[in-house]
Amino acid sequence: MKKSKNTIEERRHTLAHLLASAVLKKYPDAKLGIGPTIENGFYYDFDLGGKLKEEDLEKLEQTMRDLIGQELDMTGEKVTAAEARKLFAHQSYKLELIDEYEKEGRELTAYTIGDFTDLCKGGHADNTRDIDPASFTLTTIAGAYWRGDENNPQLQRIYALAFDTPAELSEYRVMLEEAKKRDHRKLGKELGLFAITDEVGPGLPLFYPKGAMLRRIVENFITELQEKRGYESIWIPHITKGELYKISGHAEKYDALYPPMHLEKEADYFIKPMNCPHFMMLYKTTPHSYRELPVRWTCTTTNYRHEKSGELSGLTRVRSLTQDDCHVFTRKDQIEEVIEEMLDMIEETYATFGFKDFWVRISTHDPENKEQYIGDPAVWQESEKVLTSVISKRGWQHEIGVGEAAFYGPKLDFIFKDVIGRSWQLSTIQLDMNLPERFELEYIDSDGEKKRPVVIHRAILGSTERFLGILIEHYGGAFPFWLAPVQVKILTINDKVIEYTNEVAGKLKGQNIRFELDTRNESIGKKIREAELGKVPYIFVIGEKEATANQINIRTRGVKDTKTISLEQFLEDTKN
Amino acid sequence: MKKSKNTIEERRHTLAHLLASAVLKKYPDAKLGIGPTIENGFYYDFDLGGKLKEEDLEKLEQTMRDLIGQELDMTGEKVTAAEARKLFAHQSYKLELIDEYEKEGRELTAYTIGDFTDLCKGGHADNTRDIDPASFTLTTIAGAYWRGDENNPQLQRIYALAFDTPAELSEYRVMLEEAKKRDHRKLGKELGLFAITDEVGPGLPLFYPKGAMLRRIVENFITELQEKRGYESIWIPHITKGELYKISGHAEKYDALYPPMHLEKEADYFIKPMNCPHFMMLYKTTPHSYRELPVRWTCTTTNYRHEKSGELSGLTRVRSLTQDDCHVFTRKDQIEEVIEEMLDMIEETYATFGFKDFWVRISTHDPENKEQYIGDPAVWQESEKVLTSVISKRGWQHEIGVGEAAFYGPKLDFIFKDVIGRSWQLSTIQLDMNLPERFELEYIDSDGEKKRPVVIHRAILGSTERFLGILIEHYGGAFPFWLAPVQVKILTINDKVIEYTNEVAGKLKGQNIRFELDTRNESIGKKIREAELGKVPYIFVIGEKEATANQINIRTRGVKDTKTISLEQFLEDTKN
Repeated sequence: MKKSKNTIEERRHTLAHLLASAVLKKYPDAKLGIGPTIENGFYYDFDLGGKLKEEDLEKLEQTMRDLIGQELDMTGEKVTAAEARKLFAHQSYKLELIDEYEKEGRELTAYTIGDFTDLCKGGHADNTRDIDPASFTLTTIAGAYWRGDENNPQLQRIYALAFDTPAELSEYRVMLEEAKKRDHRKLGKELGLFAITDEVGPGLPLFYPKGAMLRRIVENFITELQEKRGYESIWIPHITKGELYKISGHAEKYDALYPPMHLEKEADYFIKPMNCPHFMMLYKTTPHSYRELPVRWTCTTTNYRHEKSGELSGLTRVRSLTQDDCHVFTRKDQIEEVIEEMLDMIEETYATFGFKDFWVRISTHDPENKEQYIGDPAVWQESEKVLTSVISKRGWQHEIGVGEAAFYGPKLDFIFKDVIGRSWQLSTIQLDMNLPERFELEYIDSDGEKKRPVVIHRAILGSTERFLGILIEHYGGAFPFWLAPVQVKILTINDKVIEYTNEVAGKLKGQNIRFELDTRNESIGKKIREAELGKVPYIFVIGEKEATANQINIRTRGVKDTKTISLEQFLEDTKN
Repeated sequence: MKKSKNTIEERRHTLAHLLASAVLKKYPDAKLGIGPTIENGFYYDFDLGGKLKEEDLEKLEQTMRDLIGQELDMTGEKVTAAEARKLFAHQSYKLELIDEYEKEGRELTAYTIGDFTDLCKGGHADNTRDIDPASFTLTTIAGAYWRGDENNPQLQRIYALAFDTPAELSEYRVMLEEAKKRDHRKLGKELGLFAITDEVGPGLPLFYPKGAMLRRIVENFITELQEKRGYESIWIPHITKGELYKISGHAEKYDALYPPMHLEKEADYFIKPMNCPHFMMLYKTTPHSYRELPVRWTCTTTNYRHEKSGELSGLTRVRSLTQDDCHVFTRKDQIEEVIEEMLDMIEETYATFGFKDFWVRISTHDPENKEQYIGDPAVWQESEKVLTSVISKRGWQHEIGVGEAAFYGPKLDFIFKDVIGRSWQLSTIQLDMNLPERFELEYIDSDGEKKRPVVIHRAILGSTERFLGILIEHYGGAFPFWLAPVQVKILTINDKVIEYTNEVAGKLKGQNIRFELDTRNESIGKKIREAELGKVPYIFVIGEKEATANQINIRTRGVKDTKTISLEQFLEDTKN
């Protein structure tokens, strides 16, 4: 029975079976692992003693296309464990799975396509007719431990991309190519932004002056954005006695905590993986009146999380995360006002960085499981209503994730799509009724009674490092003028123009324009080529003609024609 | 034989004997510890089973003055160990010292004044006639372990102040009183600058918004000072693999290092106690040309040192030190230029903060022990000549400490005297020929050869925390306008002036003036008193009269008379 239309998931799943079938045709002794679908495609694991080579992929693809051309049906049937053991007598990994499924009392099914049968729970395109043979490609081979456990044998994993149409596949591959060119790890090196060294350690980037300047521009932007609205910066140390995390509850349940610095005659110290407990502690040191609330505290400070080394990647997944962290201690009647203000800041930030394409995930409690949540049910109800209405009011695209809230409060997550279509979770706003309780935070209300404030956590960038990683790729390293660590590069044609060049440089400095000077005795062609690699917004070329005419020859990034104008004109043009 | 004049050290030493004599007269069973001179006075330790009380001090002082009045001679004689044991048969601590000195083959002497004999190496006023009975005072009693070892019995230590004249004593006591009023720990709390909590830990201050603002003003000042001169900020993480400290040599010999964060499957991580190794590492990641040098890198970042908890004090001795750390990688021919530039920055900083009274210690190598030092002897000679000549040229008071240089290079230390006469070591400039060697740092010279740069370490403030502690005491919390975290406090007389007040506040904000608003329904007298405690430079009082006349009533800190002027006039007056 043919369904009217298979889903992409079903097609990918069927393609995974075809890949296993193709491998077995070439290597009949291959032991099969598992072959699930993944984002944009699928993979399949094989034990072949490492025999698979990248060169095999093309042939395997061809075999798969041949099988597709045979318009094969995919058929499934229930089997008993005994039958399954017979079917997969030579497949040791499958036998292991059968044992396990049997123990768990799960129903077993075997699916057959052509002459290949696999242990599988189903969900397939029911005939290869429904798969465009040009809509998939095998991309790469990687090592992978059986069941992800490094004590198990290492298998070979073949990754594949698969889409509904060849056009979509091609679009995705173009995006991948573009992403490769924009890779912030590659650009970070080429543009002299940051370095990661063995001696300091993985996930702990060090920033050269240009990278540090980018950090500062971005962080200062956020600080000013906040201070305009009455947010105040505090300062906290990067370490603490473990006592603080006993109060906050992080001691028991926080995975990425670095191990303690163990002292003989004193309590152990920890490097902080988040700032909330320090903020709570500082709030607690003094009494607060209802009049002061909302207390809006912020701090751009680095946290350390011992992420698995295999998961680290450039700036986007690091162990040193500098968060633009803000905690607002608020009365319940101020929640809407506080959230509105936060949305204003997020809106201004995204507009400034040119992030036009984003949507919001609103995570709310599950009304069927009320007992899972702590805090005042009235606050839950009211604040979820507020979260939804303020987002709707702005006309921002959003999804409501019922039951996705944490036990201590509902939240908003902002997901941004970059210029090449990849999604990044950025800002977050989270209500918290737990930490104020654990730290016994209070304010004196207008009626003289002690009340518990609600805490609202908020980060706009997420972390400076990750945000920079995204920014570098978003702009492909060609930062807009205001953000570029070097805004102007000045090249001299020869030493006769040094005096005039210094005059120009002095004027740029007076206007706080960030520039570099290249007065080497190299050909101007070479100097221009090198300057262009740095992706600076403007290159000034100064020769004797320019010096005499009191002008400069300007090459604008991305513009073919150069122009010769006065420095004053340039300053006027770049003012905003 | 009377000397023409005894030194203050000799007088203090004799007074210590008189104190012991006075204690024995009152408590004949007292066991004596030691009684050395210290800065500004002396102490003596006694074992009396904790019997000494603060109330005893006055009587003991009186007994000492009686003894002084008797014009007693101090006489000394050599004794054998056997004689000494007989003399001090009932003094168990002295017997312990006698055993030890005998083992070391040291000569023993006993000094007698009146009927009291003490084991002592001498150095006394030879007659009490030479001591003004009003020139000393016993100040306090504290616990102290015998020989400073907490496994030994705890003794009681009597501290005393002693000077040449009663006038000097009185001056010093006035200074102490003043210091107490200016104590930054007290002011830090009163002015809402910082807090130290048990849960985070000793020596790890957290800064409220006002303290964080002070930090930022001070740190930004230094950053701008440096950037004007072409220094570039870098960014480094706060942790590192131990590998870095094996290369730098700190792993073996750095005491205050926090213990490692120990990981099972990875090398241990350390929180950094200093920045140099990170800077060296970053320099090493790329090739450098002689043209780029001097590479002037700076970073304001927090270091963590596990100082003994007993030595911690407010902000002036902390475990979290944020250093305005700078490392210049320089060619040998650029050393003078680099040092001159650093002195310019120090000069500008001290002038800005009103530090008029400072002197410089120049630490040079010991020409008798050349083998103690590493590096190029020519660089030593040349740079010590440079250090001395540049300091002399500026006419700055200085001392040369021959043999006080570290093994890796000569240095300059800047010692500042605050308004109440206390000395604080602040800035430091240090040549380093060791780390470039250990990290194998290089640059390509104009002749195409690889050469080793010299590193010059430099800090102006020392650490933000300590500098703020000093600043708070220097200004007694009454910061100059440009530095004050709150520059203006606006007080309203009643709610009828809210609109006008908001208008004034808006204009202050537009001029980036930091202000606070107090619109509470409290009496204006109470509001003024509270505002004055905050030591803000200007208090604005706004009533209906002012609102109508478009003026403000201004109380200037430290000025008795108030004035009523327009806001525009105030802005004009405070502009600089």
